[in-house]
Amino acid sequence: MSKKNKITIVEVGTRDGMQIEKKFISTKKKIKIVDMITNSGIQRIEVTSFVSPKHVPQLSDAKQVMENINRKDGVEYEALVPNLIGMERALECDLDRISFFVSSSETFNNKNLRASRSEMIKKSKEIAKIAIENKIKIRGSVVTAFGCPYEGSIPFDSLEWVIKEYLEMGCDEICLADTVGMSNPEHVKDITERMRNIAPDVQFALHFHNTRGLGLANVYAGLKIGIKTFDSSVGGLGGCPFAPKATGNISTEDTVNMLQEMGYNTNINLEKIIRVVSYLEKTLSRQLPGQLLHAGKPKW
Amino acid sequence: MSKKNKITIVEVGTRDGMQIEKKFISTKKKIKIVDMITNSGIQRIEVTSFVSPKHVPQLSDAKQVMENINRKDGVEYEALVPNLIGMERALECDLDRISFFVSSSETFNNKNLRASRSEMIKKSKEIAKIAIENKIKIRGSVVTAFGCPYEGSIPFDSLEWVIKEYLEMGCDEICLADTVGMSNPEHVKDITERMRNIAPDVQFALHFHNTRGLGLANVYAGLKIGIKTFDSSVGGLGGCPFAPKATGNISTEDTVNMLQEMGYNTNINLEKIIRVVSYLEKTLSRQLPGQLLHAGKPKW
Repeated sequence: MSKKNKITIVEVGTRDGMQIEKKFISTKKKIKIVDMITNSGIQRIEVTSFVSPKHVPQLSDAKQVMENINRKDGVEYEALVPNLIGMERALECDLDRISFFVSSSETFNNKNLRASRSEMIKKSKEIAKIAIENKIKIRGSVVTAFGCPYEGSIPFDSLEWVIKEYLEMGCDEICLADTVGMSNPEHVKDITERMRNIAPDVQFALHFHNTRGLGLANVYAGLKIGIKTFDSSVGGLGGCPFAPKATGNISTEDTVNMLQEMGYNTNINLEKIIRVVSYLEKTLSRQLPGQLLHAGKPKW
Repeated sequence: MSKKNKITIVEVGTRDGMQIEKKFISTKKKIKIVDMITNSGIQRIEVTSFVSPKHVPQLSDAKQVMENINRKDGVEYEALVPNLIGMERALECDLDRISFFVSSSETFNNKNLRASRSEMIKKSKEIAKIAIENKIKIRGSVVTAFGCPYEGSIPFDSLEWVIKEYLEMGCDEICLADTVGMSNPEHVKDITERMRNIAPDVQFALHFHNTRGLGLANVYAGLKIGIKTFDSSVGGLGGCPFAPKATGNISTEDTVNMLQEMGYNTNINLEKIIRVVSYLEKTLSRQLPGQLLHAGKPKW
Protein backbone atom coordinates (compact mmCIF):
# COMPACT_ATOMS: atom_id res chain seq x y z
CA MET A 1 0.00 0.00 0.00
CA SER A 2 1.50 3.33 -1.03
CA LYS A 3 2.02 6.12 1.46
CA LYS A 4 -0.42 8.13 -0.62
CA ASN A 5 -3.21 5.87 0.57
CA LYS A 6 -2.23 5.82 4.24
CA ILE A 7 -4.85 7.31 6.55
CA THR A 8 -4.41 7.70 10.29
CA ILE A 9 -7.40 7.24 12.56
CA VAL A 10 -7.24 8.80 16.01
CA GLU A 11 -9.52 6.78 18.28
CA VAL A 12 -11.27 9.14 20.71
CA GLY A 13 -13.94 6.83 22.12
CA THR A 14 -12.56 6.48 25.62
CA ARG A 15 -12.13 10.26 25.86
CA ASP A 16 -14.68 12.22 23.78
CA GLY A 17 -16.99 9.22 23.73
CA MET A 18 -17.00 8.32 27.38
CA GLN A 19 -16.92 11.76 28.93
CA ILE A 20 -20.69 12.19 28.69
CA GLU A 21 -21.52 8.70 30.00
CA LYS A 22 -23.26 9.24 33.32
CA LYS A 23 -22.79 5.78 34.80
CA PHE A 24 -19.16 5.21 35.79
CA ILE A 25 -17.40 2.66 33.59
CA SER A 26 -14.92 0.79 35.79
CA THR A 27 -11.22 1.52 35.36
CA LYS A 28 -10.67 -2.17 34.61
CA LYS A 29 -13.17 -2.04 31.75
CA LYS A 30 -11.66 1.16 30.36
CA ILE A 31 -8.23 -0.48 30.34
CA LYS A 32 -9.64 -3.55 28.63
CA ILE A 33 -11.27 -1.36 25.97
CA VAL A 34 -8.06 0.60 25.30
CA ASP A 35 -6.10 -2.67 25.07
CA MET A 36 -8.61 -4.13 22.63
CA ILE A 37 -8.33 -0.95 20.54
CA THR A 38 -4.52 -1.17 20.65
CA ASN A 39 -4.73 -4.73 19.37
CA SER A 40 -6.79 -3.66 16.36
CA GLY A 41 -3.67 -2.17 14.80
CA ILE A 42 -4.79 1.44 15.25
CA GLN A 43 -1.88 3.85 15.50
CA ARG A 44 -3.19 6.68 17.68
CA ILE A 45 -5.48 6.58 20.72
CA GLU A 46 -6.64 9.59 22.69
CA VAL A 47 -7.01 7.55 25.84
CA THR A 48 -8.45 9.99 28.35
CA SER A 49 -8.60 13.55 29.57
CA PHE A 50 -6.88 15.13 32.56
CA VAL A 51 -9.86 17.34 33.32
CA SER A 52 -11.05 18.15 36.79
CA PRO A 53 -12.38 14.91 38.36
CA LYS A 54 -15.09 17.07 39.92
CA HIS A 55 -16.34 18.28 36.52
CA VAL A 56 -15.97 14.98 34.68
CA PRO A 57 -16.06 12.16 37.26
CA GLN A 58 -16.18 9.58 34.45
CA LEU A 59 -12.54 10.38 33.61
CA SER A 60 -11.31 10.80 37.19
CA ASP A 61 -9.29 7.60 36.72
CA ALA A 62 -7.23 9.07 33.86
CA LYS A 63 -3.90 8.35 35.56
CA GLN A 64 -4.77 4.77 36.58
CA VAL A 65 -5.94 4.04 33.02
CA MET A 66 -2.77 5.49 31.49
CA GLU A 67 -0.58 3.55 33.91
CA ASN A 68 -2.21 0.18 33.34
CA ILE A 69 -2.88 -0.08 29.64
CA ASN A 70 -0.65 -2.40 27.63
CA ARG A 71 1.22 -0.14 25.30
CA LYS A 72 2.40 -1.31 21.94
CA ASP A 73 5.31 0.05 19.93
CA GLY A 74 4.17 2.17 17.03
CA VAL A 75 1.00 3.32 18.78
CA GLU A 76 0.77 6.89 20.07
CA TYR A 77 -1.05 7.27 23.38
CA GLU A 78 -2.50 10.71 23.81
CA ALA A 79 -4.66 12.64 26.25
CA LEU A 80 -6.53 15.88 26.51
CA VAL A 81 -5.03 18.39 28.93
CA PRO A 82 -7.13 21.47 29.64
CA ASN A 83 -4.96 23.24 32.25
CA LEU A 84 -1.76 23.24 34.29
CA ILE A 85 -3.17 21.06 37.06
CA GLY A 86 -4.08 18.48 34.42
CA MET A 87 -0.63 18.84 32.85
CA GLU A 88 1.04 17.98 36.16
CA ARG A 89 -0.93 14.73 36.30
CA ALA A 90 -0.34 14.09 32.61
CA LEU A 91 3.42 14.44 32.96
CA GLU A 92 3.50 11.39 35.22
CA CYS A 93 1.91 9.27 32.50
CA ASP A 94 4.49 9.09 29.70
CA LEU A 95 2.20 10.47 26.98
CA ASP A 96 3.24 10.60 23.34
CA ARG A 97 1.06 13.60 22.66
CA ILE A 98 -1.17 15.95 24.54
CA SER A 99 -3.98 18.02 23.11
CA PHE A 100 -5.74 21.14 24.24
CA PHE A 101 -8.55 23.11 22.73
CA VAL A 102 -10.28 26.42 22.35
CA SER A 103 -13.54 27.23 20.64
CA SER A 104 -13.34 29.67 17.77
CA SER A 105 -16.57 31.13 19.16
CA GLU A 106 -16.39 33.44 22.19
CA THR A 107 -19.94 32.52 23.27
CA PHE A 108 -19.23 28.78 23.13
CA ASN A 109 -16.10 29.31 25.24
CA ASN A 110 -17.92 31.33 27.83
CA LYS A 111 -20.98 29.11 28.02
CA ASN A 112 -19.42 25.65 27.72
CA LEU A 113 -15.79 26.09 28.72
CA ARG A 114 -16.26 28.81 31.36
CA ALA A 115 -13.36 30.90 30.03
CA SER A 116 -12.77 33.46 27.32
CA ARG A 117 -10.86 32.53 24.19
CA SER A 118 -7.87 34.55 25.37
CA GLU A 119 -7.86 32.78 28.71
CA MET A 120 -8.01 29.39 26.97
CA ILE A 121 -5.12 30.35 24.67
CA LYS A 122 -3.10 31.61 27.64
CA LYS A 123 -3.56 28.26 29.41
CA SER A 124 -2.63 26.38 26.23
CA LYS A 125 0.59 28.39 25.92
CA GLU A 126 1.66 27.36 29.42
CA ILE A 127 0.85 23.71 28.71
CA ALA A 128 2.60 23.83 25.32
CA LYS A 129 5.78 25.19 26.89
CA ILE A 130 5.94 22.30 29.35
CA ALA A 131 5.07 19.74 26.66
CA ILE A 132 7.90 20.98 24.43
CA GLU A 133 10.37 20.89 27.34
CA ASN A 134 9.33 17.29 27.90
CA LYS A 135 9.46 16.37 24.21
CA ILE A 136 5.75 15.60 24.06
CA LYS A 137 3.97 16.28 20.76
CA ILE A 138 1.15 18.83 20.78
CA ARG A 139 -2.21 18.93 19.06
CA GLY A 140 -4.20 22.15 19.16
CA SER A 141 -7.91 21.56 18.62
CA VAL A 142 -10.31 24.17 17.32
CA VAL A 143 -13.72 23.41 18.77
CA THR A 144 -16.79 24.54 16.72
CA ALA A 145 -14.41 25.37 13.85
CA PHE A 146 -17.21 24.69 11.36
CA GLY A 147 -20.04 26.46 13.17
CA CYS A 148 -21.25 27.29 16.65
CA PRO A 149 -24.69 26.45 18.06
CA TYR A 150 -24.87 29.96 19.59
CA GLU A 151 -23.05 32.19 17.09
CA GLY A 152 -23.65 30.21 13.90
CA SER A 153 -21.03 30.87 11.27
CA ILE A 154 -17.48 31.55 12.52
CA PRO A 155 -15.73 34.61 11.07
CA PHE A 156 -12.57 33.77 9.19
CA ASP A 157 -10.38 35.98 11.36
CA SER A 158 -11.54 34.24 14.55
CA LEU A 159 -10.31 30.95 13.13
CA GLU A 160 -7.17 32.55 11.76
CA TRP A 161 -6.35 34.01 15.17
CA VAL A 162 -6.56 30.59 16.87
CA ILE A 163 -4.51 28.87 14.14
CA LYS A 164 -1.75 31.49 14.41
CA GLU A 165 -1.66 31.21 18.19
CA TYR A 166 -1.36 27.43 17.88
CA LEU A 167 1.47 27.76 15.37
CA GLU A 168 3.32 30.15 17.61
CA MET A 169 3.13 27.82 20.59
CA GLY A 170 4.60 24.96 18.57
CA CYS A 171 1.66 22.67 17.81
CA ASP A 172 2.69 20.04 15.29
CA GLU A 173 -0.95 19.18 14.58
CA ILE A 174 -4.09 21.28 14.36
CA CYS A 175 -7.43 19.57 14.61
CA LEU A 176 -10.54 21.27 13.23
CA ALA A 177 -13.64 19.99 15.01
CA ASP A 178 -17.25 20.11 13.83
CA THR A 179 -18.40 19.81 17.43
CA VAL A 180 -22.15 19.95 16.85
CA GLY A 181 -22.22 18.48 13.34
CA MET A 182 -23.19 21.64 11.45
CA SER A 183 -20.87 21.29 8.49
CA ASN A 184 -21.28 19.76 5.06
CA PRO A 185 -18.79 18.47 2.48
CA GLU A 186 -18.36 21.71 0.53
CA HIS A 187 -18.05 23.71 3.75
CA VAL A 188 -15.45 21.26 5.09
CA LYS A 189 -13.37 21.72 1.96
CA ASP A 190 -13.68 25.49 2.06
CA ILE A 191 -12.82 26.03 5.74
CA THR A 192 -10.08 23.39 5.84
CA GLU A 193 -8.34 24.68 2.74
CA ARG A 194 -8.43 28.24 4.02
CA MET A 195 -6.99 27.18 7.37
CA ARG A 196 -4.30 25.13 5.67
CA ASN A 197 -3.26 28.17 3.67
CA ILE A 198 -2.56 29.97 6.95
CA ALA A 199 -0.49 27.06 8.28
CA PRO A 200 0.83 25.09 5.30
CA ASP A 201 3.58 23.32 7.25
CA VAL A 202 1.53 21.86 10.06
CA GLN A 203 -0.48 18.65 9.89
CA PHE A 204 -4.25 19.10 9.89
CA ALA A 205 -6.69 16.57 11.36
CA LEU A 206 -10.48 16.61 11.12
CA HIS A 207 -12.92 15.71 13.88
CA PHE A 208 -16.54 15.15 12.87
CA HIS A 209 -19.75 14.45 14.70
CA ASN A 210 -22.51 12.65 12.85
CA THR A 211 -25.29 14.79 14.29
CA ARG A 212 -27.09 15.26 10.97
CA GLY A 213 -25.88 12.14 9.16
CA LEU A 214 -23.12 13.96 7.32
CA GLY A 215 -20.12 12.55 9.17
CA LEU A 216 -18.81 10.21 6.49
CA ALA A 217 -19.66 12.59 3.66
CA ASN A 218 -17.49 15.12 5.48
CA VAL A 219 -14.66 12.62 5.87
CA TYR A 220 -14.88 11.94 2.15
CA ALA A 221 -14.65 15.68 1.46
CA GLY A 222 -11.60 15.89 3.71
CA LEU A 223 -9.97 12.98 1.86
CA LYS A 224 -10.54 14.71 -1.47
CA ILE A 225 -8.45 17.68 -0.35
CA GLY A 226 -5.69 15.46 1.00
CA ILE A 227 -6.40 15.30 4.73
CA LYS A 228 -4.76 12.19 6.17
CA THR A 229 -5.86 12.19 9.83
CA PHE A 230 -9.38 11.77 11.17
CA ASP A 231 -10.77 11.33 14.67
CA SER A 232 -13.45 8.74 15.32
CA SER A 233 -14.98 6.84 18.18
CA VAL A 234 -15.66 3.10 18.53
CA GLY A 235 -19.37 2.49 18.04
CA GLY A 236 -19.91 6.21 17.49
CA LEU A 237 -19.85 6.44 21.27
CA GLY A 238 -20.42 9.99 22.36
CA GLY A 239 -23.79 11.42 21.57
CA CYS A 240 -24.67 14.97 22.26
CA PRO A 241 -26.14 15.78 25.67
CA PHE A 242 -28.22 18.57 24.08
CA ALA A 243 -30.06 16.46 21.49
CA PRO A 244 -31.61 13.14 22.56
CA LYS A 245 -30.92 11.07 19.47
CA ALA A 246 -28.22 13.10 17.78
CA THR A 247 -25.31 10.74 17.34
CA GLY A 248 -21.90 11.79 18.53
CA ASN A 249 -18.52 11.23 16.96
CA ILE A 250 -18.39 9.41 13.66
CA SER A 251 -17.94 5.74 14.40
CA THR A 252 -14.52 4.17 13.93
CA GLU A 253 -15.86 1.01 12.34
CA ASP A 254 -18.05 2.79 9.77
CA THR A 255 -15.22 5.20 8.94
CA VAL A 256 -12.63 2.44 8.59
CA ASN A 257 -15.05 0.43 6.47
CA MET A 258 -15.52 3.37 4.08
CA LEU A 259 -11.77 3.96 3.91
CA GLN A 260 -10.91 0.30 3.34
CA GLU A 261 -13.63 -0.07 0.72
CA MET A 262 -12.08 2.86 -1.17
CA GLY A 263 -8.60 1.33 -1.00
CA TYR A 264 -7.13 3.39 1.83
CA ASN A 265 -4.89 1.73 4.40
CA THR A 266 -5.60 2.48 8.07
CA ASN A 267 -3.59 -0.45 9.47
CA ILE A 268 -6.76 -1.41 11.37
CA ASN A 269 -8.26 -4.87 11.57
CA LEU A 270 -11.95 -4.12 11.21
CA GLU A 271 -13.09 -7.37 12.84
CA LYS A 272 -11.12 -6.47 15.95
CA ILE A 273 -12.70 -3.01 16.12
CA ILE A 274 -16.15 -4.55 15.70
CA ARG A 275 -15.38 -6.80 18.70
CA VAL A 276 -14.67 -3.67 20.76
CA VAL A 277 -18.03 -2.22 19.72
CA SER A 278 -19.76 -5.45 20.67
CA TYR A 279 -18.05 -5.41 24.10
CA LEU A 280 -19.01 -1.73 24.54
CA GLU A 281 -22.66 -2.40 23.72
CA LYS A 282 -22.70 -5.16 26.32
CA THR A 283 -20.94 -2.94 28.87
CA LEU A 284 -23.32 -0.02 28.32
CA SER A 285 -26.41 -2.22 27.79
CA ARG A 286 -27.49 -0.28 24.74
CA GLN A 287 -27.07 -0.15 21.01
CA LEU A 288 -24.52 2.39 19.74
CA PRO A 289 -24.94 4.51 16.59
CA GLY A 290 -22.20 2.78 14.55
CA GLN A 291 -23.87 0.63 11.89
CA LEU A 292 -21.27 -1.93 10.87
CA LEU A 293 -21.65 -4.22 13.87
CA HIS A 294 -25.25 -4.84 12.85
CA ALA A 295 -25.07 -4.49 9.07
CA GLY A 296 -21.81 -6.43 8.67
CA LYS A 297 -19.08 -5.73 6.14
CA PRO A 298 -20.14 -5.67 2.49
CA LYS A 299 -19.71 -9.13 1.02
CA TRP A 300 -17.75 -8.83 -2.18
CA MET B 1 -31.33 29.73 -8.24
CA SER B 2 -29.64 28.56 -11.43
CA LYS B 3 -30.72 25.38 -13.18
CA LYS B 4 -27.23 24.08 -12.52
CA ASN B 5 -28.08 23.82 -8.84
CA LYS B 6 -31.48 22.22 -9.28
CA ILE B 7 -31.76 18.74 -7.73
CA THR B 8 -34.84 16.54 -7.94
CA ILE B 9 -35.74 14.35 -5.00
CA VAL B 10 -37.98 11.35 -5.66
CA GLU B 11 -39.81 10.55 -2.44
CA VAL B 12 -40.13 6.77 -2.07
CA GLY B 13 -41.23 6.50 1.55
CA THR B 14 -44.78 5.36 0.97
CA ARG B 15 -43.54 2.71 -1.48
CA ASP B 16 -40.04 1.42 -0.69
CA GLY B 17 -40.35 2.62 2.89
CA MET B 18 -43.73 1.21 3.76
CA GLN B 19 -43.57 -2.10 1.92
CA ILE B 20 -41.74 -3.84 4.76
CA GLU B 21 -43.97 -2.42 7.53
CA LYS B 22 -45.79 -5.41 8.99
CA LYS B 23 -48.65 -3.57 10.69
CA PHE B 24 -51.11 -2.21 8.11
CA ILE B 25 -51.05 1.56 7.87
CA SER B 26 -54.60 2.70 7.11
CA THR B 27 -55.38 3.98 3.62
CA LYS B 28 -56.52 7.25 5.17
CA LYS B 29 -53.16 7.73 6.86
CA LYS B 30 -51.26 6.86 3.69
CA ILE B 31 -53.26 9.48 1.78
CA LYS B 32 -52.61 12.04 4.49
CA ILE B 33 -48.86 11.30 4.33
CA VAL B 34 -48.73 11.62 0.54
CA ASP B 35 -50.69 14.88 0.74
CA MET B 36 -48.33 16.26 3.37
CA ILE B 37 -45.37 15.29 1.15
CA THR B 38 -47.02 16.97 -1.84
CA ASN B 39 -47.40 20.15 0.20
CA SER B 40 -43.68 20.22 0.98
CA GLY B 41 -42.98 21.34 -2.57
CA ILE B 42 -41.39 18.06 -3.62
CA GLN B 43 -41.70 17.41 -7.35
CA ARG B 44 -41.80 13.62 -7.63
CA ILE B 45 -43.45 11.02 -5.40
CA GLU B 46 -43.35 7.26 -5.93
CA VAL B 47 -46.66 6.78 -4.17
CA THR B 48 -47.13 3.04 -4.11
CA SER B 49 -46.58 -0.26 -5.87
CA PHE B 50 -49.01 -2.35 -7.87
CA VAL B 51 -47.55 -5.59 -6.58
CA SER B 52 -49.59 -8.62 -5.69
CA PRO B 53 -51.73 -7.76 -2.63
CA LYS B 54 -51.06 -11.30 -1.46
CA HIS B 55 -47.29 -10.78 -1.45
CA VAL B 56 -47.29 -7.22 -0.10
CA PRO B 57 -50.56 -6.71 1.82
CA GLN B 58 -49.32 -3.34 3.07
CA LEU B 59 -49.69 -1.91 -0.43
CA SER B 60 -52.92 -3.71 -1.33
CA ASP B 61 -54.68 -0.32 -1.26
CA ALA B 62 -52.50 1.10 -4.04
CA LYS B 63 -55.49 2.04 -6.19
CA GLN B 64 -57.49 3.65 -3.37
CA VAL B 65 -54.44 5.69 -2.37
CA MET B 66 -53.79 6.86 -5.93
CA GLU B 67 -57.46 7.78 -6.41
CA ASN B 68 -57.77 9.82 -3.25
CA ILE B 69 -54.58 11.82 -2.92
CA ASN B 70 -54.77 15.54 -3.64
CA ARG B 71 -52.63 16.01 -6.68
CA LYS B 72 -50.84 19.23 -7.32
CA ASP B 73 -49.73 20.62 -10.68
CA GLY B 74 -46.02 20.27 -11.22
CA VAL B 75 -45.74 17.13 -9.10
CA GLU B 76 -45.19 13.77 -10.77
CA TYR B 77 -47.05 10.87 -9.16
CA GLU B 78 -45.39 7.56 -9.85
CA ALA B 79 -45.74 3.91 -8.92
CA LEU B 80 -43.86 0.67 -9.17
CA VAL B 81 -45.38 -1.84 -11.56
CA PRO B 82 -43.85 -5.33 -11.51
CA ASN B 83 -46.08 -7.14 -14.01
CA LEU B 84 -48.99 -6.96 -16.44
CA ILE B 85 -51.64 -7.55 -13.77
CA GLY B 86 -50.20 -4.62 -11.86
CA MET B 87 -50.10 -2.55 -15.05
CA GLU B 88 -53.83 -3.11 -15.61
CA ARG B 89 -54.55 -1.69 -12.16
CA ALA B 90 -52.00 1.09 -12.65
CA LEU B 91 -53.63 2.21 -15.91
CA GLU B 92 -56.79 3.14 -14.02
CA CYS B 93 -54.84 5.53 -11.81
CA ASP B 94 -53.60 8.31 -14.10
CA LEU B 95 -49.92 7.91 -13.28
CA ASP B 96 -47.28 10.31 -14.56
CA ARG B 97 -44.62 7.65 -14.52
CA ILE B 98 -44.29 3.96 -13.81
CA SER B 99 -41.16 2.13 -12.81
CA PHE B 100 -40.08 -1.46 -13.00
CA PHE B 101 -36.93 -3.20 -11.92
CA VAL B 102 -34.56 -6.06 -12.41
CA SER B 103 -31.56 -7.04 -10.36
CA SER B 104 -28.26 -7.07 -12.17
CA SER B 105 -27.54 -10.25 -10.21
CA GLU B 106 -29.13 -13.51 -11.35
CA THR B 107 -29.02 -14.96 -7.82
CA PHE B 108 -30.77 -11.93 -6.31
CA ASN B 109 -33.46 -12.19 -8.97
CA ASN B 110 -34.04 -15.83 -8.34
CA LYS B 111 -33.95 -15.65 -4.56
CA ASN B 112 -35.77 -12.36 -3.93
CA LEU B 113 -37.81 -11.72 -7.05
CA ARG B 114 -38.64 -15.33 -7.93
CA ALA B 115 -37.79 -14.88 -11.62
CA SER B 116 -34.71 -14.91 -13.81
CA ARG B 117 -33.26 -11.70 -15.18
CA SER B 118 -34.54 -12.55 -18.65
CA GLU B 119 -38.04 -13.16 -17.34
CA MET B 120 -37.98 -9.83 -15.49
CA ILE B 121 -36.80 -8.01 -18.62
CA LYS B 122 -39.48 -9.73 -20.69
CA LYS B 123 -42.18 -8.54 -18.26
CA SER B 124 -40.72 -5.03 -18.29
CA LYS B 125 -40.86 -4.93 -22.09
CA GLU B 126 -44.57 -5.74 -22.04
CA ILE B 127 -45.21 -3.07 -19.41
CA ALA B 128 -43.07 -0.51 -21.25
CA LYS B 129 -45.00 -1.02 -24.47
CA ILE B 130 -48.30 -0.28 -22.73
CA ALA B 131 -46.84 2.68 -20.86
CA ILE B 132 -45.59 4.24 -24.10
CA GLU B 133 -48.96 3.70 -25.79
CA ASN B 134 -50.54 5.50 -22.85
CA LYS B 135 -47.94 8.29 -22.82
CA ILE B 136 -46.72 7.38 -19.35
CA LYS B 137 -43.05 8.02 -18.59
CA ILE B 138 -40.90 5.01 -17.70
CA ARG B 139 -38.14 4.51 -15.18
CA GLY B 140 -36.10 1.34 -15.32
CA SER B 141 -34.48 0.49 -12.00
CA VAL B 142 -31.38 -1.63 -11.64
CA VAL B 143 -31.58 -3.34 -8.26
CA THR B 144 -28.24 -4.26 -6.57
CA ALA B 145 -26.46 -2.25 -9.28
CA PHE B 146 -23.61 -1.54 -6.83
CA GLY B 147 -23.26 -5.00 -5.33
CA CYS B 148 -25.29 -8.07 -4.45
CA PRO B 149 -25.50 -9.70 -1.02
CA TYR B 150 -25.18 -13.13 -2.70
CA GLU B 151 -22.91 -12.54 -5.67
CA GLY B 152 -20.90 -9.58 -4.39
CA SER B 153 -19.45 -7.49 -7.18
CA ILE B 154 -21.56 -7.18 -10.34
CA PRO B 155 -19.76 -7.81 -13.65
CA PHE B 156 -19.79 -4.83 -15.96
CA ASP B 157 -21.48 -6.72 -18.78
CA SER B 158 -24.38 -7.77 -16.53
CA LEU B 159 -25.08 -4.11 -15.84
CA GLU B 160 -24.50 -3.16 -19.46
CA TRP B 161 -26.99 -5.78 -20.62
CA VAL B 162 -29.75 -4.38 -18.36
CA ILE B 163 -29.03 -0.77 -19.35
CA LYS B 164 -29.20 -1.62 -23.05
CA GLU B 165 -32.46 -3.51 -22.60
CA TYR B 166 -33.92 -0.51 -20.75
CA LEU B 167 -32.81 1.84 -23.51
CA GLU B 168 -34.35 -0.36 -26.13
CA MET B 169 -37.71 -0.47 -24.38
CA GLY B 170 -37.81 3.33 -24.21
CA CYS B 171 -37.03 4.17 -20.56
CA ASP B 172 -36.48 7.89 -20.19
CA GLU B 173 -34.85 7.39 -16.79
CA ILE B 174 -32.56 4.71 -15.41
CA CYS B 175 -32.21 4.39 -11.67
CA LEU B 176 -29.17 2.64 -10.21
CA ALA B 177 -29.97 1.26 -6.77
CA ASP B 178 -27.56 0.33 -3.99
CA THR B 179 -30.19 -1.97 -2.52
CA VAL B 180 -28.22 -3.30 0.43
CA GLY B 181 -25.94 -0.32 0.97
CA MET B 182 -22.68 -1.92 -0.19
CA SER B 183 -21.29 0.97 -2.21
CA ASN B 184 -18.96 3.83 -1.34
CA PRO B 185 -18.35 7.24 -2.92
CA GLU B 186 -15.54 6.20 -5.30
CA HIS B 187 -17.46 3.11 -6.35
CA VAL B 188 -20.60 5.18 -6.98
CA LYS B 189 -18.64 7.48 -9.26
CA ASP B 190 -17.00 4.62 -11.11
CA ILE B 191 -20.13 2.53 -11.76
CA THR B 192 -22.38 5.48 -12.51
CA GLU B 193 -19.96 7.03 -14.98
CA ARG B 194 -19.49 3.74 -16.77
CA MET B 195 -23.23 3.22 -17.02
CA ARG B 196 -23.74 6.75 -18.24
CA ASN B 197 -21.23 6.16 -21.00
CA ILE B 198 -23.42 3.33 -22.27
CA ALA B 199 -26.54 5.51 -22.21
CA PRO B 200 -25.43 9.13 -22.49
CA ASP B 201 -28.84 10.46 -23.56
CA VAL B 202 -30.97 9.06 -20.78
CA GLN B 203 -31.41 10.61 -17.34
CA PHE B 204 -29.77 8.70 -14.49
CA ALA B 205 -31.10 8.65 -10.93
CA LEU B 206 -29.42 7.17 -7.86
CA HIS B 207 -31.12 5.26 -5.08
CA PHE B 208 -29.13 4.71 -1.89
CA HIS B 209 -29.69 2.83 1.33
CA ASN B 210 -27.87 4.01 4.42
CA THR B 211 -27.09 0.49 5.65
CA ARG B 212 -23.47 1.27 6.54
CA GLY B 213 -23.77 5.02 7.11
CA LEU B 214 -22.54 5.91 3.63
CA GLY B 215 -25.81 7.14 2.14
CA LEU B 216 -25.11 10.86 2.12
CA ALA B 217 -21.45 10.39 1.21
CA ASN B 218 -22.72 8.48 -1.82
CA VAL B 219 -25.18 11.24 -2.70
CA TYR B 220 -22.33 13.72 -2.51
CA ALA B 221 -20.27 11.54 -4.86
CA GLY B 222 -23.22 11.41 -7.26
CA LEU B 223 -23.56 15.19 -7.15
CA LYS B 224 -19.88 15.60 -8.00
CA ILE B 225 -20.34 13.72 -11.26
CA GLY B 226 -23.44 15.70 -12.15
CA ILE B 227 -26.30 13.42 -11.10
CA LYS B 228 -29.43 15.52 -10.56
CA THR B 229 -32.00 13.00 -9.30
CA PHE B 230 -31.92 11.06 -6.04
CA ASP B 231 -34.45 8.82 -4.31
CA SER B 232 -35.03 9.18 -0.59
CA SER B 233 -37.60 8.29 2.01
CA VAL B 234 -39.19 10.48 4.70
CA GLY B 235 -37.60 9.64 8.03
CA GLY B 236 -35.38 7.06 6.35
CA LEU B 237 -38.41 4.79 6.54
CA GLY B 238 -37.60 1.39 5.18
CA GLY B 239 -35.04 -0.55 7.08
CA CYS B 240 -33.76 -3.86 5.94
CA PRO B 241 -35.62 -6.99 7.06
CA PHE B 242 -32.32 -8.92 7.06
CA ALA B 243 -30.38 -6.69 9.51
CA PRO B 244 -32.12 -5.55 12.69
CA LYS B 245 -30.71 -2.03 12.93
CA ALA B 246 -29.49 -1.45 9.42
CA THR B 247 -31.28 1.68 8.25
CA GLY B 248 -33.11 1.66 4.97
CA ASN B 249 -33.38 4.35 2.35
CA ILE B 250 -31.49 7.56 2.92
CA SER B 251 -33.81 9.97 4.68
CA THR B 252 -35.40 12.77 2.71
CA GLU B 253 -34.91 15.36 5.43
CA ASP B 254 -31.20 14.63 5.96
CA THR B 255 -30.60 14.56 2.21
CA VAL B 256 -32.48 17.81 1.60
CA ASN B 257 -30.65 19.42 4.51
CA MET B 258 -27.27 18.48 3.01
CA LEU B 259 -28.32 19.72 -0.42
CA GLN B 260 -29.72 23.01 0.88
CA GLU B 261 -26.67 23.60 3.05
CA MET B 262 -24.49 23.24 -0.04
CA GLY B 263 -26.62 25.69 -2.04
CA TYR B 264 -28.65 23.24 -4.11
CA ASN B 265 -32.31 23.92 -4.77
CA THR B 266 -34.73 21.03 -4.24
CA ASN B 267 -37.91 23.16 -4.13
CA ILE B 268 -38.65 21.44 -0.80
CA ASN B 269 -39.69 23.16 2.40
CA LEU B 270 -37.65 21.30 4.98
CA GLU B 271 -39.91 22.21 7.91
CA LYS B 272 -42.85 20.65 6.08
CA ILE B 273 -40.92 17.43 5.47
CA ILE B 274 -39.90 17.32 9.12
CA ARG B 275 -43.59 17.56 10.03
CA VAL B 276 -44.25 14.47 7.91
CA VAL B 277 -41.49 12.60 9.75
CA SER B 278 -42.95 13.66 13.07
CA TYR B 279 -46.40 12.41 11.99
CA LEU B 280 -44.87 9.14 10.76
CA GLU B 281 -43.05 8.54 14.04
CA LYS B 282 -46.34 9.03 15.89
CA THR B 283 -48.17 6.75 13.45
CA LEU B 284 -45.59 3.98 13.72
CA SER B 285 -44.88 4.54 17.44
CA ARG B 286 -41.13 4.44 16.94
CA GLN B 287 -38.18 6.62 16.13
CA LEU B 288 -37.07 6.59 12.51
CA PRO B 289 -33.44 6.66 11.35
CA GLY B 290 -33.53 10.19 9.86
CA GLN B 291 -31.60 12.52 12.17
CA LEU B 292 -32.84 16.01 11.37
CA LEU B 293 -36.13 15.80 13.27
CA HIS B 294 -34.16 15.30 16.47
CA ALA B 295 -30.99 17.27 15.76
CA GLY B 296 -32.72 20.23 14.13
CA LYS B 297 -31.41 22.31 11.25
CA PRO B 298 -27.97 23.86 11.73
CA LYS B 299 -28.38 27.35 13.18
CA TRP B 300 -26.38 29.77 11.09
